[in-house]
Amino acid sequence: MYFDPVEALDRPALERLQTERLRRTLAIAARSPFYGERLAGLNIDDIRTPDDITSLPFTTKDDLRSQYPYGMLTRPQEEFVRLHASSGTTGTPTAIFYTQGDLDAWADLMARSMYACGCRKTDVLQNMSGYGLFTGGLGIHYGSERLGMLTIPAGAGNTKRQIKLIRDFKVTVMHIIPSFALYFAQKVREEGFDTADMPWRIALIGAEPHTEEARRKIEEMMHIKAYNSYGLSEMNGPGVAFECEHQTGMHLWEDAYIAEIINPETGEHVAEGEVGELVMTTLTREGMPIIRYRTRDLTRFLPGQCACGRTHRRIDRIAGRADDMIILKGVNIYPMQIEHCLMAMPEVGQNYLIELVTEGVSDQMKVKVEIKDEFFVEDMRSLQALQKRIAKNLCNEILLTPRVELVQHDSIPKTEGKAVRVVDNRSKE
Amino acid sequence: MYFDPVEALDRPALERLQTERLRRTLAIAARSPFYGERLAGLNIDDIRTPDDITSLPFTTKDDLRSQYPYGMLTRPQEEFVRLHASSGTTGTPTAIFYTQGDLDAWADLMARSMYACGCRKTDVLQNMSGYGLFTGGLGIHYGSERLGMLTIPAGAGNTKRQIKLIRDFKVTVMHIIPSFALYFAQKVREEGFDTADMPWRIALIGAEPHTEEARRKIEEMMHIKAYNSYGLSEMNGPGVAFECEHQTGMHLWEDAYIAEIINPETGEHVAEGEVGELVMTTLTREGMPIIRYRTRDLTRFLPGQCACGRTHRRIDRIAGRADDMIILKGVNIYPMQIEHCLMAMPEVGQNYLIELVTEGVSDQMKVKVEIKDEFFVEDMRSLQALQKRIAKNLCNEILLTPRVELVQHDSIPKTEGKAVRVVDNRSKE
Repeated sequence: MYFDPVEALDRPALERLQTERLRRTLAIAARSPFYGERLAGLNIDDIRTPDDITSLPFTTKDDLRSQYPYGMLTRPQEEFVRLHASSGTTGTPTAIFYTQGDLDAWADLMARSMYACGCRKTDVLQNMSGYGLFTGGLGIHYGSERLGMLTIPAGAGNTKRQIKLIRDFKVTVMHIIPSFALYFAQKVREEGFDTADMPWRIALIGAEPHTEEARRKIEEMMHIKAYNSYGLSEMNGPGVAFECEHQTGMHLWEDAYIAEIINPETGEHVAEGEVGELVMTTLTREGMPIIRYRTRDLTRFLPGQCACGRTHRRIDRIAGRADDMIILKGVNIYPMQIEHCLMAMPEVGQNYLIELVTEGVSDQMKVKVEIKDEFFVEDMRSLQALQKRIAKNLCNEILLTPRVELVQHDSIPKTEGKAVRVVDNRSKE
Repeated sequence: MYFDPVEALDRPALERLQTERLRRTLAIAARSPFYGERLAGLNIDDIRTPDDITSLPFTTKDDLRSQYPYGMLTRPQEEFVRLHASSGTTGTPTAIFYTQGDLDAWADLMARSMYACGCRKTDVLQNMSGYGLFTGGLGIHYGSERLGMLTIPAGAGNTKRQIKLIRDFKVTVMHIIPSFALYFAQKVREEGFDTADMPWRIALIGAEPHTEEARRKIEEMMHIKAYNSYGLSEMNGPGVAFECEHQTGMHLWEDAYIAEIINPETGEHVAEGEVGELVMTTLTREGMPIIRYRTRDLTRFLPGQCACGRTHRRIDRIAGRADDMIILKGVNIYPMQIEHCLMAMPEVGQNYLIELVTEGVSDQMKVKVEIKDEFFVEDMRSLQALQKRIAKNLCNEILLTPRVELVQHDSIPKTEGKAVRVVDNRSKE
């Protein structure tokens, strides 16, 4: 029923395991130049429960950057076999190093995750993610082989060929970026196939945040079950938290990570169930452990037990980045709120674009929204009514009335990678 | 001294191992629909030496295509964990399936190959090859991790970032396409670095056929040792044959493959040391063995013992494809002959292009040749003399006088992938 019995360990045993692994992790971490200094004076015997982690300092992205390239390593570089790095286009990159043991542990977590949402060794997985320095490609790839699925390293792009492979090899599981999934479904139809006749049954769509409405739209258009997940390269990559077949939040693998949710302003834990910044600690990484990492991702713990029997707590889908927050006229807005609101309306198509502009002395938000063909009628009056309704719904959500522009299906440019949803053209003066 | 003691096994023991593995391979192969029929009536007890393989039928690319997708498999599809496929842009693709055991054996061969040319676990390898369905990327990647090198999955493209990674992580081994290596060396200089100051020491450049002269030019411009290798996806991918540190031909791993060289017209073995088509049989593949595969690649066995002590025979660099042969005015010409001749001349730059055209009723060859800046003088007479000299040298090699056009450095368009060297614009009437 589970890939690993640890998934259903009772909470007291799970917390004892966390404590033991946290103590070991701290002992290892102290061998790195960075934590050697940062944790100096720590008495590991003071760590008696997972909650004792709150006595330790946070680690930030800037800390990782300041240690680039080797300052976080706990052993000689020659004992590492893999490196992933962020692009570093906006400053010093961050680099994550893995020993063979770290890669094995990661592949196991990834295999466990895919098993939880119904993948089995009899499945055929097509990995439509780019490979390379980005952890999404190789992360899914190694986990899929570990689970024993026939793994097709298709990579990104070349839609026609992707469709041919899916049909020829009866692909049942796809790893696909959510913002590309709807475009892909449309291409399948343009090639003359019915998405209901495709062999697929599971889509892994965790690569970028998306709303529940976007997921339902993908499921409907592709005739597939789509599962959300969460990961970040600082915590290995994908496979940190994954939905089970019940699709009620993502089980965060607590034998491998300690997760906390804090108020990003105060650094204190939020009340149970409140949204805040996710903070994570590795418990099984031997080469480059990271303690209390500030992910900048906003989420909350979901209350209650999951029907699947797994005891690891579930987190809600990511509600945005602490850094992505738009501040407009003194109001805090997360782009996810706008997507959530738009995707709930049946007239709205697949794509939208938020633009921030300065007009005169005041900043404005414009939202360009694609409308489905059947609603894009020539009757000016009903279009204007729709436009007003969208603006009103958005105002209810974000407490500001944006200017809404309706456009035809396919008129907002699409990329095959992550979608650009916000363009900030405000005057910087 | 060797990654695996089998590399220096004495010939009689090696041949006994080959015979034993060939017999096992035939027994396994007969479980597939294709070989079940093709090998019907074969008595495995008739196979007593590796040479007895000549009694078996060849397998061609068309055979593989006719069995697409599953006809070559010896076990249920769910026992396979990886698939690689050719692009199939010009017809039915070919698909190669791997079990976990096959991937392990391939990674071992790849690790052994890199060890043979001096790579060690203390090295840092940057894989500049594209990943995905092409076997070159993941093949090198898995072998590098197996050997214990710190592996950077950089992928293709983004030259500036590649240079940054190489400098930041003190990359000592690069996997780079030979036709891209010279372009890359130039970019390194344009970024203001001296190639002599880069941390690299080994370039693995086996991804496409090239001449000895091209290798020496890469070594000189990059201040690196460059090693050639041979592989094809039908025989796993890279890691079939690899140069050792002596750079005198590529050791073909005879415990994993039986290699034959035949006259492509008659199918008979050529005389020892003669050039012909390489034919290969897998000896360790359990999921999808292939018997006597016609590679269409032209090479020869090199005579004598290698100073490294490895007993596995060496093949010469690939002299072309049986299919790439140009027939012009009744003469057989391999593009490699032209490259060989051009790269031997100190005035010639990095790039050239062969164009075949019809003029009136007769076909002609034009060769556009880039000349190094220091030789591209304004003195018409000396340029004309150089042009004549190139035409004469080419005529000595290919027995035809092509029309030679001299162009300035960088005037032939370059791609980041495989170089296009021949354009056939002959009238098809």
